Amino acid sequence: MKTILVIHGPNLNWLGKRESAIYGRQTLEEINTLLQKFAKTSHLSLLFYQSNHEGDLIDYIQKQAEKSAGIIINPGALTHYSYALRDALGALHIPIVEVHLSNIYSRESFRHTSVTAAVCRGQISGFGKDSYLLGLQILEKLIQQEGKKK
Amino acid sequence: MKTILVIHGPNLNWLGKRESAIYGRQTLEEINTLLQKFAKTSHLSLLFYQSNHEGDLIDYIQKQAEKSAGIIINPGALTHYSYALRDALGALHIPIVEVHLSNIYSRESFRHTSVTAAVCRGQISGFGKDSYLLGLQILEKLIQQEGKKK
Amino acid sequence: MKTILVIHGPNLNWLGKRESAIYGRQTLEEINTLLQKFAKTSHLSLLFYQSNHEGDLIDYIQKQAEKSAGIIINPGALTHYSYALRDALGALHIPIVEVHLSNIYSRESFRHTSVTAAVCRGQISGFGKDSYLLGLQILEKLIQQEGKKK
Amino acid sequence: MKTILVIHGPNLNWLGKRESAIYGRQTLEEINTLLQKFAKTSHLSLLFYQSNHEGDLIDYIQKQAEKSAGIIINPGALTHYSYALRDALGALHIPIVEVHLSNIYSRESFRHTSVTAAVCRGQISGFGKDSYLLGLQILEKLIQQEGKKK
Amino acid sequence: MKTILVIHGPNLNWLGKRESAIYGRQTLEEINTLLQKFAKTSHLSLLFYQSNHEGDLIDYIQKQAEKSAGIIINPGALTHYSYALRDALGALHIPIVEVHLSNIYSRESFRHTSVTAAVCRGQISGFGKDSYLLGLQILEKLIQQEGKKK
Amino acid sequence: MKTILVIHGPNLNWLGKRESAIYGRQTLEEINTLLQKFAKTSHLSLLFYQSNHEGDLIDYIQKQAEKSAGIIINPGALTHYSYALRDALGALHIPIVEVHLSNIYSRESFRHTSVTAAVCRGQISGFGKDSYLLGLQILEKLIQQEGKKK
Amino acid sequence: MKTILVIHGPNLNWLGKRESAIYGRQTLEEINTLLQKFAKTSHLSLLFYQSNHEGDLIDYIQKQAEKSAGIIINPGALTHYSYALRDALGALHIPIVEVHLSNIYSRESFRHTSVTAAVCRGQISGFGKDSYLLGLQILEKLIQQEGKKK
Amino acid sequence: MKTILVIHGPNLNWLGKRESAIYGRQTLEEINTLLQKFAKTSHLSLLFYQSNHEGDLIDYIQKQAEKSAGIIINPGALTHYSYALRDALGALHIPIVEVHLSNIYSRESFRHTSVTAAVCRGQISGFGKDSYLLGLQILEKLIQQEGKKK
Amino acid sequence: MKTILVIHGPNLNWLGKRESAIYGRQTLEEINTLLQKFAKTSHLSLLFYQSNHEGDLIDYIQKQAEKSAGIIINPGALTHYSYALRDALGALHIPIVEVHLSNIYSRESFRHTSVTAAVCRGQISGFGKDSYLLGLQILEKLIQQEGKKK
Amino acid sequence: MKTILVIHGPNLNWLGKRESAIYGRQTLEEINTLLQKFAKTSHLSLLFYQSNHEGDLIDYIQKQAEKSAGIIINPGALTHYSYALRDALGALHIPIVEVHLSNIYSRESFRHTSVTAAVCRGQISGFGKDSYLLGLQILEKLIQQEGKKK
Amino acid sequence: MKTILVIHGPNLNWLGKRESAIYGRQTLEEINTLLQKFAKTSHLSLLFYQSNHEGDLIDYIQKQAEKSAGIIINPGALTHYSYALRDALGALHIPIVEVHLSNIYSRESFRHTSVTAAVCRGQISGFGKDSYLLGLQILEKLIQQEGKKK
Amino acid sequence: MKTILVIHGPNLNWLGKRESAIYGRQTLEEINTLLQKFAKTSHLSLLFYQSNHEGDLIDYIQKQAEKSAGIIINPGALTHYSYALRDALGALHIPIVEVHLSNIYSRESFRHTSVTAAVCRGQISGFGKDSYLLGLQILEKLIQQEGKKK
Repeated sequence: MKTILVIHGPNLNWLGKRESAIYGRQTLEEINTLLQKFAKTSHLSLLFYQSNHEGDLIDYIQKQAEKSAGIIINPGALTHYSYALRDALGALHIPIVEVHLSNIYSRESFRHTSVTAAVCRGQISGFGKDSYLLGLQILEKLIQQEGKKK
Repeated sequence: MKTILVIHGPNLNWLGKRESAIYGRQTLEEINTLLQKFAKTSHLSLLFYQSNHEGDLIDYIQKQAEKSAGIIINPGALTHYSYALRDALGALHIPIVEVHLSNIYSRESFRHTSVTAAVCRGQISGFGKDSYLLGLQILEKLIQQEGKKK
Repeated sequence: MKTILVIHGPNLNWLGKRESAIYGRQTLEEINTLLQKFAKTSHLSLLFYQSNHEGDLIDYIQKQAEKSAGIIINPGALTHYSYALRDALGALHIPIVEVHLSNIYSRESFRHTSVTAAVCRGQISGFGKDSYLLGLQILEKLIQQEGKKK
Repeated sequence: MKTILVIHGPNLNWLGKRESAIYGRQTLEEINTLLQKFAKTSHLSLLFYQSNHEGDLIDYIQKQAEKSAGIIINPGALTHYSYALRDALGALHIPIVEVHLSNIYSRESFRHTSVTAAVCRGQISGFGKDSYLLGLQILEKLIQQEGKKK
Repeated sequence: MKTILVIHGPNLNWLGKRESAIYGRQTLEEINTLLQKFAKTSHLSLLFYQSNHEGDLIDYIQKQAEKSAGIIINPGALTHYSYALRDALGALHIPIVEVHLSNIYSRESFRHTSVTAAVCRGQISGFGKDSYLLGLQILEKLIQQEGKKK
Repeated sequence: MKTILVIHGPNLNWLGKRESAIYGRQTLEEINTLLQKFAKTSHLSLLFYQSNHEGDLIDYIQKQAEKSAGIIINPGALTHYSYALRDALGALHIPIVEVHLSNIYSRESFRHTSVTAAVCRGQISGFGKDSYLLGLQILEKLIQQEGKKK
Repeated sequence: MKTILVIHGPNLNWLGKRESAIYGRQTLEEINTLLQKFAKTSHLSLLFYQSNHEGDLIDYIQKQAEKSAGIIINPGALTHYSYALRDALGALHIPIVEVHLSNIYSRESFRHTSVTAAVCRGQISGFGKDSYLLGLQILEKLIQQEGKKK
Repeated sequence: MKTILVIHGPNLNWLGKRESAIYGRQTLEEINTLLQKFAKTSHLSLLFYQSNHEGDLIDYIQKQAEKSAGIIINPGALTHYSYALRDALGALHIPIVEVHLSNIYSRESFRHTSVTAAVCRGQISGFGKDSYLLGLQILEKLIQQEGKKK
Repeated sequence: MKTILVIHGPNLNWLGKRESAIYGRQTLEEINTLLQKFAKTSHLSLLFYQSNHEGDLIDYIQKQAEKSAGIIINPGALTHYSYALRDALGALHIPIVEVHLSNIYSRESFRHTSVTAAVCRGQISGFGKDSYLLGLQILEKLIQQEGKKK
Repeated sequence: MKTILVIHGPNLNWLGKRESAIYGRQTLEEINTLLQKFAKTSHLSLLFYQSNHEGDLIDYIQKQAEKSAGIIINPGALTHYSYALRDALGALHIPIVEVHLSNIYSRESFRHTSVTAAVCRGQISGFGKDSYLLGLQILEKLIQQEGKKK
Repeated sequence: MKTILVIHGPNLNWLGKRESAIYGRQTLEEINTLLQKFAKTSHLSLLFYQSNHEGDLIDYIQKQAEKSAGIIINPGALTHYSYALRDALGALHIPIVEVHLSNIYSRESFRHTSVTAAVCRGQISGFGKDSYLLGLQILEKLIQQEGKKK
Repeated sequence: MKTILVIHGPNLNWLGKRESAIYGRQTLEEINTLLQKFAKTSHLSLLFYQSNHEGDLIDYIQKQAEKSAGIIINPGALTHYSYALRDALGALHIPIVEVHLSNIYSRESFRHTSVTAAVCRGQISGFGKDSYLLGLQILEKLIQQEGKKK
């Protein structure tokens, strides 16, 4: 059974509690539950992690990456400046999918840039909790494909 | 039965024939067939359109948008400069999903910007043909949700 | 009887149907009728043309310019990037007036720049259909003045 | 009888006396007379004001705005940097039309930007004295329209 | 008894009359009265000055600075471009406090920059009339401290 | 009794110990004591927090914000790049005041920008420990005003 | 017998008719005839194509590229912004030579950049019709060399 | 006897009284006296003018230019942003010399740019009062040369 | 015996395990061992610290700096944006040497800038583990020299 | 018999010896021989010059230009910054052709700019030694044409 | 008797022979003779030097500076990029005057910047040969003044 | 016995004689002697070269590189703009170490960029003469390592 890391960056623990006009009313726990439900039908085990600390996110990635088959990450505002997080992700060979709840292109201009996306397989933004669900789905596929190659 | 427009911008008719290292080996026809297969299981009718002409894409959007419930669009290189296409999409109220085969963040810097994404619901990039499939899937959901609201 | 070209760029055929908050409720046909009515009282014959295609606009300009005494053009979003349209207009010696329905200075920053205005006699923006009417009026005068000089 | 302010910024008192190649041979007095003549046929009373002082222009706007129905303003070179003038105009609710004698897009690059246009209804540039006449004409219409709404 | 200059830049005479959504409903006179009341309890005599003229503000600073112990200044829109005002303030040795009614960081991007703040002791922005009151309070303290040093 | 969070960002624990030429000789403890003394006279209870960790600051804000009536924050160098901190503050509805000991406009150019100020009510910079005292004072007032509105 | 595509972008059909001061007095037909004459002496068959439509140029390239041994292209103003044309050219493996009639470095600054040249073998600009002739000559050589390598 | 305007911009009336480290200890009166003394030996009559008002400077130039043979101007901080002053100077045909007391290149970066110098004959900066003296000397020569040409 | 801090920033704990093509095959432990060996021969005691947390690095610097004679720091990706780390280092008076394993000038453009180097004595980059060894060597010398000065 | 200068800038003496992947395997001597051979068939005498010194190149141009009918120059890396070389070339009236071995648009971004091309008739880049041969050929033609005009 | 270096940069040896529309008809020899004549009346001995070589100019400055009392330098195009020349001049303590024949502000934008002026006492530009004469005159004065201080 | 080139760029011959506050009191000869002494203990023969001429430095590199095993270069101010020097160094395969006496990051902003470092193995800056000594030391090691690989 393959393990996938589902990593949420700063302030995502406040989902559903704050700024629901932008990010929707669902809490992070509800999103995680949704993802869990989806994962059950596949051969995937999900590990959830949220932190407001750039360093914790890097620590977690370093500790878990070895035993994981893929990563879904919503780096929150770190998306726009954390080269340290980029380096952590960039050092991995497993597939990584960057997701965003809101459409980063229709908000403030500083959010139009991602310093982490370049080291991921791809990016999904703008679909609320579904950004995660789509991310999980494509990650499953990417892992299968890579499994076959070997 | 709801109609969805699947719109491919410049040079996407060459998929699978050129630059397969970047864009994969699948042809546009094969991608369309895949989407068609997926759509069958839902209550969705797909209309496919590809053009190398900015103007044709706008004409098509204007002609079909009224009768459509959503749009998946890969604007190709027009993503990076076609404000006219942006205006056509921006005038619609149906959900639009922008998709890209390759990860636009890990290529030349002029590809890091999208002038069209701001008027879409969201963007999916980097997963080859699966960018389209994920786009179709989320579009179906967005249409259902909006249907319920009314 | 002098001929004037009234040229509308991308998405202007949707006037009155979409985004009326920005562009007003009048359709392009109604604007053309208004201009026609105005032209009757002068010795002006109007030729109307709308296209969503940069290339068509250039073709039309090239075909008609010889037989025309002036041009009113609303290049739509092409205003902001079409150097090809600029070159077509820049090659002419008849007076050209650039018009915009909305005030391009009070919208998104990419609309603050015009690459075509430099090769026109002047620009009128922000007065809805009246931008066209003022344009026609001044064009008539410019044609008369130039006629006298010869 | 509605009052309209016709405001001319720095150096416009030199019209017709200097740099006629750019600005034409008509003096400011002649332009004002032309506007006056036009206004007679309408129910408009014009108040003319010219100053080379940013502060005087703001003082005048503040003193007269209450009793006025609209403003035509050619801010001269202040167009390109006077945020103070912009704030004065931006505080008003009556329609304002920015006019320029020369085509600001075909001159030095610092003239391509207007910091005041964003708080006006629109801008007319490039038609010499006729920029003012068109401005007066459209202003009359804007005032009528707004009158009806109330 | 120490004299403090309270200087208001362009358009601040319109406070409470225009754009109260941004600047509040209090008039400049009311703000001055509030400051006066506050000053009574201290050993401070206030001199109020408002002008829409950059030059008048400089003249006033030059004339009064010698006999003053400190300055509170809200340069209005001049904040963003008046290097001449900056030079006038920069030549003084008495403490100067720059104040703004609105939060200059949450408005148009041209307001995020202050060319005058660098030559002041500090800046207070975003608290309406209280920006002035806080400014007066800290100025009193700065004057006391500097008095002791001598 | 209302609770106010007094939050100090990176390196502020070194106040009075290092770089006293820029930041003054008072320690953070002394500043906190001053604020405490001030708060006693009002109906305010102060909670002090300092951290060199962006993540800790966000954690603290999230944990305490619910039970607080306002925040005084000196984000230290995070002011200039921490969009994550900005997002944490931006999600709150209680009044926030950004304070700086030194005048950020008269130091290195990277310090002239604040990414956090836009989501605060206002900013006070340049008055040493008094920036905090003024911040506390205005915060008290803002809380009272907001209390009355409800 | 090898086929070479000679492709002319927007407004080049007006050669010799407009702006002869910049582009010379020779018509496009005369240039094509010159190239034809040159080609006769070699084993080259030339196919000429001109369009004002970005999309047509891409269509043509896609349709003809398979059967061609090389391309001479003067993209006209599209040189400066058409990433779609760049993508079409960039997908080919045959040698491509970009030519310009005028010296793009001694004209307006927007003409100093080429977004298409990077995917060509090289660029020749500034020699009027001879830019094409030199282009044809070098293309012949490049085709021979590549023929030998295989 | 030829008249020369010696024009001093904002804050130059404070010369010798403030910031003598940068601008020297000589007062403006002393500089004017020096220039007067120099002028006596030539056939030159000097008119001195200082103002802190951009508008006054323009008024003065407009009023006096007709009767003058040349201008020495130190626009002070207006050098860096007053396009209105530039337009006033740019409209003249008499020789103008821009002078600066301090070396504008070795101070803050905003002082490295002059928007007025482009419409003057030349610029002299960095030599204190001698910048004026050199300016007067060269102006005398320029006037003589131009006199001969006629 | 003097103590030197050897501080490694984010992701450096992964040395030798990931991206050995860029950073070499040696682990951080091996590098520390090498430095230790070198230090033995001198009168230096080394304290090693690695963290993926900006805040931890600052905490450590603050706690240890008092008792240390110098610092070798490889801030990893924090080099490019951590003004908070810069402030921590900038507050010290002991010599600091910034080191980088790879040549930051021959990698992505965001790595060409160092916000921390300006507050260090110097920077050594591009020599793998030897960057550290050279850093230790020069630090020893700097400490000796400074010791002599006192 | 007309003389043509063939001038090679810095590092071109290393052609064929270094970086043959970029610049090809032919030595500068071989290129010169090729050009000589070509020149024999025309009425052209070639003078070859290579220097790594900007100053030598200018000296040579100044000394030889009088007696020459045209120049082929490959300024090497000086292309991108030598305004002094530009001035030397810009002072001449004979035709000048700038050539580059590699395609400057498909290399590092600093090579995309030419400060010298603006003062040449045109530029040929990307065809290895053939860039020179084409340059010689077009120069011959330009000289003939100019000869006829006189 | 004091020695002054008169240093002319690249292409100034061509004065009077080329581009006289910009630089005037006087040769460098004639300018030197003029300066010589002027120097005779003072206690100044002039050493003239011209080179097209940045390195020669630096060599000359290094060799002669010790024995010189001041420098007049027209760095020609090196003005705009030679940081090496700037460093040579910046190391001196004698007064240096930068002169330019043409008005660098009314020419191409790359000429508006001087990298050398910041390390000179001042700059004189736009007066042809008289720029040098004024430079010599002010240099004499600066040397006298500095002599007195010692 | 391996030969190493020690190359010093413009103005470094003035070391110890000028600006000792920035560059230290040691002369270039003393630095060379130090390096020589160090080299004796290794199997290294040093060749020293200093020039103020970009061209001489390139000539020297070209002439000596073949017979050398490595280079230490301090390009002086050429570091910041000499793409010609970069190309000379970039063509070599032997290890190159760039050194700077002062910390280029804590001086003027134009010194923060190195156009040459990208083609070197690494860079050492800020340690005065020791930058050279460290450079020699690491170069010795790099040469040994590369020797072993072969």
